[in-house]
Amino acid sequence: MAQTSVSFRKATEVDLLGIIHMLADDKLGQTREILSDPVDARYTAAFAAIDADPNQLMAVAVSPDGGLAGCLQLSFIPGLSRTGMWRAQIEGVRISADHRGSGLGSRFIEWAMEQAKERGCGLVQLTSDKTRPDAIRFYEKLGFVAGHEGLKLSLS
Amino acid sequence: MAQTSVSFRKATEVDLLGIIHMLADDKLGQTREILSDPVDARYTAAFAAIDADPNQLMAVAVSPDGGLAGCLQLSFIPGLSRTGMWRAQIEGVRISADHRGSGLGSRFIEWAMEQAKERGCGLVQLTSDKTRPDAIRFYEKLGFVAGHEGLKLSLS
Repeated sequence: MAQTSVSFRKATEVDLLGIIHMLADDKLGQTREILSDPVDARYTAAFAAIDADPNQLMAVAVSPDGGLAGCLQLSFIPGLSRTGMWRAQIEGVRISADHRGSGLGSRFIEWAMEQAKERGCGLVQLTSDKTRPDAIRFYEKLGFVAGHEGLKLSLS
Repeated sequence: MAQTSVSFRKATEVDLLGIIHMLADDKLGQTREILSDPVDARYTAAFAAIDADPNQLMAVAVSPDGGLAGCLQLSFIPGLSRTGMWRAQIEGVRISADHRGSGLGSRFIEWAMEQAKERGCGLVQLTSDKTRPDAIRFYEKLGFVAGHEGLKLSLS
């Protein structure tokens, strides 16, 4: 499958099941996600919240046959620091197993950077689990700088 | 000044000048912010965007005399991963020079964690510049785990 034939667009609810399967098809995701029919109601509620928020963009990479090749979420965040700079944040990046290693991931992140520029963001940021050294190298090759510690605290 | 007398609340536009001064009174912030009278229009525009967005909370710590003792921004972010979990993100934390070392920072972050719980978030996250080892230790003492790399890419 030629990577150039894959296109990127905003996700619709029709894509939700495919997105959840991609989130689950992952070393860390497989322990965190729930695959069921019908889809767990927390996913549909979360998708509705993302879809209703103009500062959230759930995006998918789609093959010409309509199959999902990847997903990511962009958040556009207004802020006061750096002279009132908006920033874009990327979360939940997945490339489907049959598209990995095709260069699609780079094109998808570059597409996300374009979305961020169009929204007037001065910065794109993301965090990557330290147990994913390949992912960290991938982002560094795209120009990201790992100058920050990413700290998380579970509330549950 | 007793730290227990400081209270926390949502910021209003009246607080904006004081917040910008706190953002600028910082090793990294002093090179990034612009102090002027009137306030640079990009700050007022950014404040308006934050204030209009129900998923953003610009918060201040205030002394009984109305003086600003600290600021931080909370972003409540819906997401599909981890079974549709919302997360809260903290940015732009500052404690004014005369309140540093008083324990106010810990109380302010714990207050932010309470706001995140009230909004149904399962996780609080932030990134801290690796050139701020004291800040990283501060967050680790509060229970944050530095398990991620924080990667950023400038678009300007």
